[in-house]
Amino acid sequence: MAIRILVTGGTFDKEYNERTGELYFKDTHIAEMLRLGRSRVEVIIRTVMMVDSLQMTDADRALIVQNCAQAPEERIVVTHGTDTMTDTAAAIARAVSDKTVVLTGAMIPYAFGSSDGLFNLGSALSFVQALPHGVYIAMNGKCFTWDRARKNRERGEFEQIPGG
Amino acid sequence: MAIRILVTGGTFDKEYNERTGELYFKDTHIAEMLRLGRSRVEVIIRTVMMVDSLQMTDADRALIVQNCAQAPEERIVVTHGTDTMTDTAAAIARAVSDKTVVLTGAMIPYAFGSSDGLFNLGSALSFVQALPHGVYIAMNGKCFTWDRARKNRERGEFEQIPGG
Amino acid sequence: MAIRILVTGGTFDKEYNERTGELYFKDTHIAEMLRLGRSRVEVIIRTVMMVDSLQMTDADRALIVQNCAQAPEERIVVTHGTDTMTDTAAAIARAVSDKTVVLTGAMIPYAFGSSDGLFNLGSALSFVQALPHGVYIAMNGKCFTWDRARKNRERGEFEQIPGG
Amino acid sequence: MAIRILVTGGTFDKEYNERTGELYFKDTHIAEMLRLGRSRVEVIIRTVMMVDSLQMTDADRALIVQNCAQAPEERIVVTHGTDTMTDTAAAIARAVSDKTVVLTGAMIPYAFGSSDGLFNLGSALSFVQALPHGVYIAMNGKCFTWDRARKNRERGEFEQIPGG
Repeated sequence: MAIRILVTGGTFDKEYNERTGELYFKDTHIAEMLRLGRSRVEVIIRTVMMVDSLQMTDADRALIVQNCAQAPEERIVVTHGTDTMTDTAAAIARAVSDKTVVLTGAMIPYAFGSSDGLFNLGSALSFVQALPHGVYIAMNGKCFTWDRARKNRERGEFEQIPGG
Repeated sequence: MAIRILVTGGTFDKEYNERTGELYFKDTHIAEMLRLGRSRVEVIIRTVMMVDSLQMTDADRALIVQNCAQAPEERIVVTHGTDTMTDTAAAIARAVSDKTVVLTGAMIPYAFGSSDGLFNLGSALSFVQALPHGVYIAMNGKCFTWDRARKNRERGEFEQIPGG
Repeated sequence: MAIRILVTGGTFDKEYNERTGELYFKDTHIAEMLRLGRSRVEVIIRTVMMVDSLQMTDADRALIVQNCAQAPEERIVVTHGTDTMTDTAAAIARAVSDKTVVLTGAMIPYAFGSSDGLFNLGSALSFVQALPHGVYIAMNGKCFTWDRARKNRERGEFEQIPGG
Repeated sequence: MAIRILVTGGTFDKEYNERTGELYFKDTHIAEMLRLGRSRVEVIIRTVMMVDSLQMTDADRALIVQNCAQAPEERIVVTHGTDTMTDTAAAIARAVSDKTVVLTGAMIPYAFGSSDGLFNLGSALSFVQALPHGVYIAMNGKCFTWDRARKNRERGEFEQIPGG
C-alpha cells in the first residue's frame, strides 16, 4: 500500500526570492526530490499547508492531525519545520494510534543544494516502512519516538531526551 | 552501538578524471556525504576495496564476507556497485546470520551531484537500524531481503522477485 | 600584471544560517569560485567590507573608491550588491580615470548553488582584461559603462539607459 | 546584433549514462547554462555536431569553418573539446578574417556540476563582445590568440606559447 506524504512547509521547502533577497514558500520540492533520489516507493503527496513551523497555530496543528487520522494509508511521512516538530508529533500521538507516522525536516532548504533534506527524506521513508505503529521523528539519520526527542537549538540537531 | 560501513566501490564513489575524461576510483565520499546529510549516527567507516562490481572476484567477495563476519558491530551497511550486489548479498547471507547487513549503491556517482546516492545512504542507514537480523538490499527507497531482489537492467532499478 | 579583486559583500557572498534561518555574511567565496572555475588568471583578492549594498554608507563607498585609486594594479574587479552598484560605480568614476574597473554581482548567493555568480565572475574577469580604461558594470553577460546602466528591479536584471 | 553560438560537443556537453556507466552526448546544455547564468545577451544557438574533439575529422572541421564563414553575425562563440581546440581555431583563422570568433570548452561536464563550464561560458561571451576581429581561445579566465595557445595536458589547462 502507498505511503502518504503530508507537506506542511518548513526549511525543506523554502525558496530564495531573487528580487527581494528574502526566503519564502512557493511549491513543495518533495516530488522532485523523490525523482532525483530515484525513489520507486509508491507515494501520495498532499500539501496541507506551507508555513514556517514557528508560525504554526493550534488550528494548523489540528488540521495536520486530522489529515493523519483520516488518511486511508497506514504509513505517513510528515515534512515539517524543525522548531516545533515535537509539538506536532505530540498532537498526532494523542489522536492517532493505529498508524506509523514519521516526521522529518531539514536544516538547509532543498533549493540551496540541501544535502540533509535528501538524506532525511530517504531516512524517513525507510523508517516509516520498517517501524511498528507509533509517532516518530527522523532527523540526522536517527529515529526517536515522539516523546523522547528534542531539538538542541545550539547544535542545530535532534537528540534523545535522557532518562526514562 | 556504532554502525559499521564497509566501502567496496561501485558507482557511489566513481570520480571523473579531468585529464583523460575517464571514470576512476580515488577515495570514498561516504564521510563527506554523512557530514552534508548532518548525520549524527555513530559510524565506523572501513574501505575494504574500491572496485567496479562487474570486476569483483570471488576472492573480493570472500573478503567482504569476512569483514561482515568479524565485525564487532551488529549492524553493517555495505556500499557496493549495483551490477553484482545481489551476488555479494547472497554470499554474506550464507555466512552471517546474527547481524543486520544492508547493501546499498547509487546509479549516479556522488561526485556528479548524485542525488540518489545521498537518498540511498539515508535509507540504508535507517533500514539497518530498524530491521531484524538478516541480509537486505536497500535501493530506490525500498528494502528487499537478499533472496527476493534483482536488478532490472533496462529500467536501472531494483525490483522484487515475484512469487514465493 | 595581476588583476585586483575587491570584495564588498552583496548577494554573491551571502550565507544561510542553519540555526536562525537568516541570511548573513561570513567569508568571501571568490577564491573558491575561481578554483572551481579553473581560473588561471593571476589575482589579488582583498575583502574591503562585507555588507548588503542597501546598507552601504557614504563612508563605505569612499573606502571602496580609495581602494581603487591606491591599487597598484591597472585592472580591478569589484564584487558588489546589485541594489546600489551604479552609485558606487559613479563614485569610482569621479575619482579614478587611469584604470579599468568592472563591478559585478549576483542575484543568487553562491552558497545556494548560484549559477549567475560564477557566470558573472567569468564575465567580469574577461571584460576587465579586454576593455580600455573606464568604469563598467558587468551583469547578465552584458557590460555597461557606469553612466549607462540601471537595475530594473521588477525584472531583476540590468539594462542600458536609452538615449545618448 | 546577436552573438552566434556554435555547439560542437566536447566535455561541455557530455552526459553520464546511468545504465551503462559510460559517457555520451545527448543534447547541448548551453541554453540551460545561459538561463541559469541569467544571461540577457541575445544569442542564436546552433548545434553543428556533438563529438569528442579527439574524434573530429577534417570534414567536421571544414563544416565548423563553413558555419563561421557563412554566419551573418559578426561575433561567434564555438564550444569545443579541449584536445584539438587549437587545430580548429587554426582552421577557422585561415578562412575567416572579418569576424570575432572565440572558442571555449570545459574540463568537467556541465551535467556533473561543472563550474568551469559556466565560468568559461561567461568568459567567452564577454571576450567575444570586447575583442577586435580575430580568432581566440578563452579558457581558464584567459584569452589567447589562436596561434599563441596550447593545451598543457599534464596540467589540464591552456597556456601561452612563449616567444614571438
